[in-house]
Amino acid sequence: MSNAQQLFQQLQEQLKKSAKFGYAASLMAWDHKTYMPDGGADGRAEALAAVETESFKIFTSDSTGEILDKLSAVSSDLNSTQRLFYDRVKAMYGRQKKIPADFFESFSLIKSKAQTIWVLAKQSSDFKIFQSSLEEIYSFVRQLAEIQGYQESPYDALLPDYEPGMTTKQLKKIIKELDQLKVIVKTILEKSPKPNEHLVHGYFPEEEQKKLCLMALEAVGYDLKTGRLDRSEHPFTITVGPDDVRLTTNFRAWNWTPSFFATLHEAGHGMYDQGKDKLLKWLYQDSGYSLGIHESQSRMWENMVGRSLSFWKFFYPKFQNSFPYYSQIPLSDFYAAINLVKASPIRTQADEVTYNLHIMLRFEIEEALLNKKLEVKDLPSFWNQKMKEYFNIVPQNDAEGVLQDIHWSGGMVGYFPTYMLGNLYAAQLFEAAGKELPSMERDFENGNFKNLLGWLREKVHHFGLVEEAPRLIHRVTGREPSSEPWLEYIKNKFGQIYNLTFNPD
Amino acid sequence: MSNAQQLFQQLQEQLKKSAKFGYAASLMAWDHKTYMPDGGADGRAEALAAVETESFKIFTSDSTGEILDKLSAVSSDLNSTQRLFYDRVKAMYGRQKKIPADFFESFSLIKSKAQTIWVLAKQSSDFKIFQSSLEEIYSFVRQLAEIQGYQESPYDALLPDYEPGMTTKQLKKIIKELDQLKVIVKTILEKSPKPNEHLVHGYFPEEEQKKLCLMALEAVGYDLKTGRLDRSEHPFTITVGPDDVRLTTNFRAWNWTPSFFATLHEAGHGMYDQGKDKLLKWLYQDSGYSLGIHESQSRMWENMVGRSLSFWKFFYPKFQNSFPYYSQIPLSDFYAAINLVKASPIRTQADEVTYNLHIMLRFEIEEALLNKKLEVKDLPSFWNQKMKEYFNIVPQNDAEGVLQDIHWSGGMVGYFPTYMLGNLYAAQLFEAAGKELPSMERDFENGNFKNLLGWLREKVHHFGLVEEAPRLIHRVTGREPSSEPWLEYIKNKFGQIYNLTFNPD
Repeated sequence: MSNAQQLFQQLQEQLKKSAKFGYAASLMAWDHKTYMPDGGADGRAEALAAVETESFKIFTSDSTGEILDKLSAVSSDLNSTQRLFYDRVKAMYGRQKKIPADFFESFSLIKSKAQTIWVLAKQSSDFKIFQSSLEEIYSFVRQLAEIQGYQESPYDALLPDYEPGMTTKQLKKIIKELDQLKVIVKTILEKSPKPNEHLVHGYFPEEEQKKLCLMALEAVGYDLKTGRLDRSEHPFTITVGPDDVRLTTNFRAWNWTPSFFATLHEAGHGMYDQGKDKLLKWLYQDSGYSLGIHESQSRMWENMVGRSLSFWKFFYPKFQNSFPYYSQIPLSDFYAAINLVKASPIRTQADEVTYNLHIMLRFEIEEALLNKKLEVKDLPSFWNQKMKEYFNIVPQNDAEGVLQDIHWSGGMVGYFPTYMLGNLYAAQLFEAAGKELPSMERDFENGNFKNLLGWLREKVHHFGLVEEAPRLIHRVTGREPSSEPWLEYIKNKFGQIYNLTFNPD
Repeated sequence: MSNAQQLFQQLQEQLKKSAKFGYAASLMAWDHKTYMPDGGADGRAEALAAVETESFKIFTSDSTGEILDKLSAVSSDLNSTQRLFYDRVKAMYGRQKKIPADFFESFSLIKSKAQTIWVLAKQSSDFKIFQSSLEEIYSFVRQLAEIQGYQESPYDALLPDYEPGMTTKQLKKIIKELDQLKVIVKTILEKSPKPNEHLVHGYFPEEEQKKLCLMALEAVGYDLKTGRLDRSEHPFTITVGPDDVRLTTNFRAWNWTPSFFATLHEAGHGMYDQGKDKLLKWLYQDSGYSLGIHESQSRMWENMVGRSLSFWKFFYPKFQNSFPYYSQIPLSDFYAAINLVKASPIRTQADEVTYNLHIMLRFEIEEALLNKKLEVKDLPSFWNQKMKEYFNIVPQNDAEGVLQDIHWSGGMVGYFPTYMLGNLYAAQLFEAAGKELPSMERDFENGNFKNLLGWLREKVHHFGLVEEAPRLIHRVTGREPSSEPWLEYIKNKFGQIYNLTFNPD
């Protein structure tokens, strides 16, 4: 074995050591949100912190650094996928190693406290309760930006934790391209008649909903032999072992759509993780890879597949079987109802069309706060004014306004744009898949999702986790990340549903 | 704070560090047996080993040893419960520290392989497949006995992992006292008419069984805010955090008794752990404390409470509500049916009366193998001959004979006697409780188990985990551990059910 191969093997062994504790921590987090009795919370928090820290310590240890240094001299002897792997790990290590241990610890503490206060503030629907915590968070985030360093914008120093390879400049360019979305949204919202939104309301027993979710998981290709579907307050996907990727969803008896589409969304995340190359299975990291690509998979399966007419040509009969009420409802009405566009104050309840506007608002705020062009205390009024401008609605209170998301209380600044990028990447990848798989829509109608999944496995899943998004998107679609395929997709789909013709760009 | 108090606090902090990884490992083990998808097994085994080892390393580190050494000079300044705690930890540390790291690792590997082979052997019902593994296990166990050291019998070197303070001599004395059990069993088995065992057979939907189990848990006082009941192949109790003690059971639709009595059994274990003093909550150890006392709690709630007439005077109406079939069955017939005595080849299916005979057989074998008075290859014929002698039955095959239990494949030699001791301790403690709580039986009839639980909390649970069983039993009952209360209990209860009079001792 060559020196480079020996070193590469050492690197993998070192990462595996760290991952063992990382996966243990993930399982503890999963259990916390699914089955843990309330009494377990305090003890779990302490044990989880210890196990997480052990994983972090091993990953950022000098041993890791030494192996990486030695490898850098011979990295040209690695094959191309090993090289990709090495570059990503080196970047992750470089960023984590820069963080002084005492800063890491104080920031952890601040975040943990801020999350508790955010919950209180949201319950009382009073931003003032949270204000000083958020100020403190932003002070730490600014310090973090200085520690990581940047050339133009401090935002550039934060992005690599969530979307390595992306710049603030590029983000702004994309957002500019998306400006026409405001007109599209306005046009759709003013159009009538609208789809009948009450078609998704009724009484849908949890057991039946779960059966349908599992049926859909099986159909799209999520592997239940290396995964599970459980119930939690907020749906999520978590990888708790090299071959153990779990999904959760939540059930509301009066509306089946949240559980069903959340399941497909999480299945997209889950299949991405299940499709990782063997080389990546013991690489455990919760930051430093493209969340945008991850999100592209969840959004694709949730919306481009799961809310497509062709999917429902296949699935509607099964669905009608479980909920006989729908045997009276034509598929076209049903399809329109699950694609209703409606201004909502809440991001997580937003439809496909309006969703990106919620992200644009958050990006604008994050950048302004970071550059001190906006003060934390002015956030609620700024938020509400923008909501009026974008959606023509004003949140009834802070809970459904500026306090709705958990991210900032967790110190995550730079995360939101990956949701928007996920939508755009999804459309760009889906367009490319459609060109290479001409029978794709007919496949869906026949309940065959293997061709799309196989294509994604090969092009995206295998090494997606270690490739920067702009490079991956260019490799697979032949062009830079762009908002154009997504805008086209939206105009086509919703033009048909709403019987509208949008002007060409 | 005095020097002793400072050191004691340091000791607790050190143990807490170890316990954090210990609890993480327990959660991983719990998940393995409840919810983990099959694909997760390989990765879990590797991660679990790393997390367990971390806990072991911290516990057996020199830091722990130094604190213990320093404390030994000032231990007279500790209060009595602290002293009890210190003595137990010192004993645990002493034993674990003696084990050389390479021996620990090779033995772990041998055990892990032997368990896999045992599963195969049991599936094929062929002892020969397992024979050489068991020989290897016994060779390691003999080495372990030499490492730990002993005066008379190598068995004495192993017992402290499961029943500290107990000697082989004392065990033999107890077993000798139990010799009359063979006559009692014979008398009962020959008596007719027998209770109608088919009264427990039928169709009992899992959902209804689970409801009844939860109702019983609530009634006896197991705290579901710091616990759970899940389903697993073999019932067990596991503590996965300082305030998170979980039970499992299994359901068979054709017979409700295994799930129900296993739930009460595990509840006994669970309430013991839930009742630990705060001082003990971050003491995580899987060996070195009295398993006999632990088992006394499970057997007491399963049998002395759960299979008592007074319990069913309270619970039978609820039960009949769930399973209307029983509304036609008089309580006396029902009570006799759940207390049927029947020779079974399988220990875990044994009734209260015959159970200890299964243990006596295993103790005899363990000691003989350890002392090389019996060879592993002769085990099946020895086993079958003893079964004939004790129960007048011969197992149909090795799976329901010598291969039935997992313990030996896991290297656990010295464990079985704690089941028998658990039965005896339970009777001795229950007798004492009855004297101090004269209304106990009437309490049960009224669904009040608080007085018994409160008594056990105070006398047994708070510091039971750090006290040696002979000392605890003497403190609480005023006499040495003895088989006499249990024999009395058996003669009374089954004399009534079977309409028999047993000769006085």
